[in-house]
Amino acid sequence: MSRLLQSYVRGGWHTPPDSGTPILGAVDGGEVARISSTGIDFAAALDYARTVGGPALARLTFHERAALLKTLGLALLAQKEEFYAESRRTGATDRDSGIDIDGGAGTLLSYASRAKRELPNDTVYLDGAVEPLGKRGTFVGQHLYTSRRGVAVQINAFNFPVWGFLEKLAPAFLAGVPTIVKPASPTAYLTELVFRRIIESGVLPEGSVQLICGGVGDLLDHLGGQDSLLFTGSAHTAALLRAHPAIVRNSVRMTAEADSLNASILGADLTAEAPEFDLYVRQLVTEMTAKAGQKCTAIRRALVPEALVEPVIEAVRARLDKVLVGTPGAEGVTMGALASTGQRDEVLKAVRALETSSSIVVGSAQAPEGPGAFLSPILLRCNSSDAAEPHEIEAFGPVATVIGYRDTAHAIELTARGQGSLVASLVTADPTVAREIVLGLAPYHGRVLVLNSEDAKESTGHGSPLPVLVHGGPGRAGGGEELGGIRGVLHHMQRTAVQASPNMLTAIGGRWVTGSAQAEDGVHPFRKSLVQLRIGDTIRSGPRQVTGADIDHFAEFTGDTFYAHTDPVAAAANPLFGGIVAHGYLVVSLAAGLFVDPAPGPVLANFGVDNLRFRTPVKVDDSLSVTLTAKAITPRASADYGEVRWDTVVTNQDGDPVATYDVLTLVAKS
Amino acid sequence: MSRLLQSYVRGGWHTPPDSGTPILGAVDGGEVARISSTGIDFAAALDYARTVGGPALARLTFHERAALLKTLGLALLAQKEEFYAESRRTGATDRDSGIDIDGGAGTLLSYASRAKRELPNDTVYLDGAVEPLGKRGTFVGQHLYTSRRGVAVQINAFNFPVWGFLEKLAPAFLAGVPTIVKPASPTAYLTELVFRRIIESGVLPEGSVQLICGGVGDLLDHLGGQDSLLFTGSAHTAALLRAHPAIVRNSVRMTAEADSLNASILGADLTAEAPEFDLYVRQLVTEMTAKAGQKCTAIRRALVPEALVEPVIEAVRARLDKVLVGTPGAEGVTMGALASTGQRDEVLKAVRALETSSSIVVGSAQAPEGPGAFLSPILLRCNSSDAAEPHEIEAFGPVATVIGYRDTAHAIELTARGQGSLVASLVTADPTVAREIVLGLAPYHGRVLVLNSEDAKESTGHGSPLPVLVHGGPGRAGGGEELGGIRGVLHHMQRTAVQASPNMLTAIGGRWVTGSAQAEDGVHPFRKSLVQLRIGDTIRSGPRQVTGADIDHFAEFTGDTFYAHTDPVAAAANPLFGGIVAHGYLVVSLAAGLFVDPAPGPVLANFGVDNLRFRTPVKVDDSLSVTLTAKAITPRASADYGEVRWDTVVTNQDGDPVATYDVLTLVAKS
Repeated sequence: MSRLLQSYVRGGWHTPPDSGTPILGAVDGGEVARISSTGIDFAAALDYARTVGGPALARLTFHERAALLKTLGLALLAQKEEFYAESRRTGATDRDSGIDIDGGAGTLLSYASRAKRELPNDTVYLDGAVEPLGKRGTFVGQHLYTSRRGVAVQINAFNFPVWGFLEKLAPAFLAGVPTIVKPASPTAYLTELVFRRIIESGVLPEGSVQLICGGVGDLLDHLGGQDSLLFTGSAHTAALLRAHPAIVRNSVRMTAEADSLNASILGADLTAEAPEFDLYVRQLVTEMTAKAGQKCTAIRRALVPEALVEPVIEAVRARLDKVLVGTPGAEGVTMGALASTGQRDEVLKAVRALETSSSIVVGSAQAPEGPGAFLSPILLRCNSSDAAEPHEIEAFGPVATVIGYRDTAHAIELTARGQGSLVASLVTADPTVAREIVLGLAPYHGRVLVLNSEDAKESTGHGSPLPVLVHGGPGRAGGGEELGGIRGVLHHMQRTAVQASPNMLTAIGGRWVTGSAQAEDGVHPFRKSLVQLRIGDTIRSGPRQVTGADIDHFAEFTGDTFYAHTDPVAAAANPLFGGIVAHGYLVVSLAAGLFVDPAPGPVLANFGVDNLRFRTPVKVDDSLSVTLTAKAITPRASADYGEVRWDTVVTNQDGDPVATYDVLTLVAKS
Repeated sequence: MSRLLQSYVRGGWHTPPDSGTPILGAVDGGEVARISSTGIDFAAALDYARTVGGPALARLTFHERAALLKTLGLALLAQKEEFYAESRRTGATDRDSGIDIDGGAGTLLSYASRAKRELPNDTVYLDGAVEPLGKRGTFVGQHLYTSRRGVAVQINAFNFPVWGFLEKLAPAFLAGVPTIVKPASPTAYLTELVFRRIIESGVLPEGSVQLICGGVGDLLDHLGGQDSLLFTGSAHTAALLRAHPAIVRNSVRMTAEADSLNASILGADLTAEAPEFDLYVRQLVTEMTAKAGQKCTAIRRALVPEALVEPVIEAVRARLDKVLVGTPGAEGVTMGALASTGQRDEVLKAVRALETSSSIVVGSAQAPEGPGAFLSPILLRCNSSDAAEPHEIEAFGPVATVIGYRDTAHAIELTARGQGSLVASLVTADPTVAREIVLGLAPYHGRVLVLNSEDAKESTGHGSPLPVLVHGGPGRAGGGEELGGIRGVLHHMQRTAVQASPNMLTAIGGRWVTGSAQAEDGVHPFRKSLVQLRIGDTIRSGPRQVTGADIDHFAEFTGDTFYAHTDPVAAAANPLFGGIVAHGYLVVSLAAGLFVDPAPGPVLANFGVDNLRFRTPVKVDDSLSVTLTAKAITPRASADYGEVRWDTVVTNQDGDPVATYDVLTLVAKS
């Protein structure tokens, strides 16, 4: 008997008491493994995630979670040869495995890097600006995100057994939410292998990840309002899950990425001789053959100007002729097998349905003889642009249909007939065409790629979701959204509007809020190290008068002789100033002169300024004072210093704010 | 016969062919109106919205839509006396009507104001920074939002017949999405009246709003992937809608605000003598009596330290004794009627269920004699904190239950037993208590209010959603999110990741992207008016050398004698600089000297700087050059100038960027 896959639940490996059902290999049809989830207490697994995994993650900051993801990503890359070998049994070539395995580990690394740069070293994420809610400033609002107290349950598709679970794990983990992974059975043996290495690594806190190989039993019945269900697969299954009684009743957050009829448009500005024509054809062939076309982002509809239908078909045919389908790893093979013969039967059934209104122009709707789930690429030509089938029937394999369009508006209309897709691409050399088509397609898509001779060398391609860009589309594509950098993390958190006094809000959010207490203890805050400094520590300094001579001098010294600083008559005519004003850069320079403490100390550098606004003109002989308050303190895990953001207000002799901004400094930890 | 309500569909008022069903008034039980949607072609109404309303909105920019909302809000406020009169028939006091009518119009005004400040004068909204996707900078990404091409269908609750539809209309309208309003029948006559005045005003583009009085027929069957359903009402109805076949099948975006068991916590740091104790009691009584407790945000659970249960009950009793229930508008009346006697029956049924584990301590579970849906406030005391009922049974009227808690952790645990609420409030004087409880509650809530003596005067109260803060909660509260300023607008748009070359992205997004073409035509861009200036117009200037004397002089002149600029030995020891560096403020001042064109012209002022980062230290005798490029141009509708954002890069003699930032200017339109 082949290997019986185990599940990892409640801190240990679970061996099913039965012999499970066989999983057949894609290449030779032989039994690769057996799978069963019999004996798992699903409610207890959820409870374990909530009571062990969630609290373990809650004890870590975003940066600490990021560090673990980085360690894990590097560990998986170091072991990837083992994964590649197993991946070949799924029908994947090594190029396909690169997308899945390196792509999965790379997603962990990308998220680790983003989190360190864009999230605070904390467990709470502040969203947007403080909202004044009253005229006197005693009542203010702040949106913040906290970790949901539930479980992220993944139900994954068979086509990306590694990337599929890691791209969902990384954002949830960073958000502080434990995950339960349920891989699709046909390729679960690869997921189980990678998951086993993750557990062996000991990198992730116990309870933060669990694995269920086999059916989910009554798992969904136990989902509650803090849980989420992350699904990738068919639109049909997505609909079944969405209507599940517990999901409906408890407002379980659900995201679905469903296969969609993604289109690639060849711009009407192009001829068959344009360099972009070749880019279009090459990308189409890549998308038909990578993963044997088993990607939810693959091109199903090739929309080309009517006059170019035949040239495109000929060019695609010429390239497809060079594709060698066969056993992954064998000499010269450029395309592997489908995941199973059952899957191949589904694809051929869809091709026959497409033939109602389209004709096969490359390949054949016949499965080859012999074992394994091999199938050569199939290109169809749609015989009528009014036909429904190419916009509704998906052949989830190496299959695409060429559809002629009349003009740009027609191309947009045809694309929209897919009723929502994960991705579309456009190949054009004309920015006007690009703007019209991209904005026309955008409401129906989660991602749109524009390919031309400028970006072709660096393009990651139509079919590749990237960790920093959102993945998901409306309507038929499932209506979900994943990834997109920190956006994907926030989907696992709850956004809450907090209303409070400034002092209370400072305490709750950990960032100093205008109007709350400012501490002056006689020690200049620039003399305090990162560990000594407290939110609210303040230095007030001034006044310094700005004379007419100062303004004249600054104009001459810097060369900034703008008339509002130098020409009294012209300045008086300016509708905003009505007379000579000091340079804004002079104001902030003098403010620095007031707040800086010059001697060497923990403050290492001023590395930037944010949100500088000049609020009241500074006139000749005005006197400036400045108040600098420690607003946010962010230690860096990998350096002996951290960042301090200082709220800065420069006022004139009447107390009016003339400039407000944040000064950003690097401060030594000790 | 009373008035037969009309619907407004497909550009005209529809009168049902039948006599409809009666709506009874809250105060005297007499028939106020009759309602029916018989004869409406719902599929055609949706189609009309998509084909007439959507395109009409698409022709307007965010700012133009905002201007219409402002006009409409002011027009409604000018007619509010008529609405107040009709509102009394729903059982509302004038104080209640203020929340509904002025609150509704105020939401339009708030959104109009926000949109002008935070959205571009365009139809596309760019989300986040440009993402580099390749090392050479030829392939970049940008998230953007475009208007969904569907309809926002509202199904509203009876308790806020005006605010309820306007708070959903404003964000959808700004997003460019047409709306169909379906009010709850018991108070639909007020919605119909206000809607009639809106149509008469002629302010909104035809097709952008339609009204359905009566049942929705087969409307939901025709919803597609670009449509959304916005529901406010019971959790039970929310679940039915969520499982509707068309919604499930087409991934229709749905948001639900369901009644929830909102809690208000009295902090354990307080005594009965603390000023906050009184704030707590007053807020609780307000929430029990405003709208006769018929608010989905009202306080249902009063969580107080066990020792303070009796003092709170006594204090609430004393205040409730002064409440006079009666006909709205009558002398001395401070609380009106429930919406209907049927609604009162529901409330009393819930109170009897609560009595399983709680005892009535104020009021009675008996309906008073006579016509009208009057009911005096009812306060219960929970007899066991383990009881399930107070956390699960909602009496949607002037009813609250006092529950004792042991300690702060217990208070959080009890609150979470509500399984997700729209809002919670906390009354405390201790910032540490505030942080612990607010962060503990946040995952279960859309909004949390902290009340103390600092913010009490300006507090808008536990029960009031605000346009600038999100409204909605997880789990039992429906899992939805509305409002929150621009966040609410974006819920009606599709987020799409666009991947392209910089030139293509500049054309698509309308904002200049680093790496795309820069135009130098010999005319300094400061000499071009807003209408002459083009995205990408550029001025390059320099070099200017920064001498040691310049740095010395700047230190002395400004007073910024930080050691890195003045002390060669100490500067050499700085880990980031390794020697004397120029002040960052000197660099940006000299850069201005390079790029400014001094003579009077269309550039009126530099009003700010964003995202200034010092990237490479400037050493003695380095030479600076600057490149300034028009990045974004935003005309202001209400002024004869607009804003221009300039991408600014200062480089040294090696071409390394030493400072990057955006300069913000005001530029005359002509």
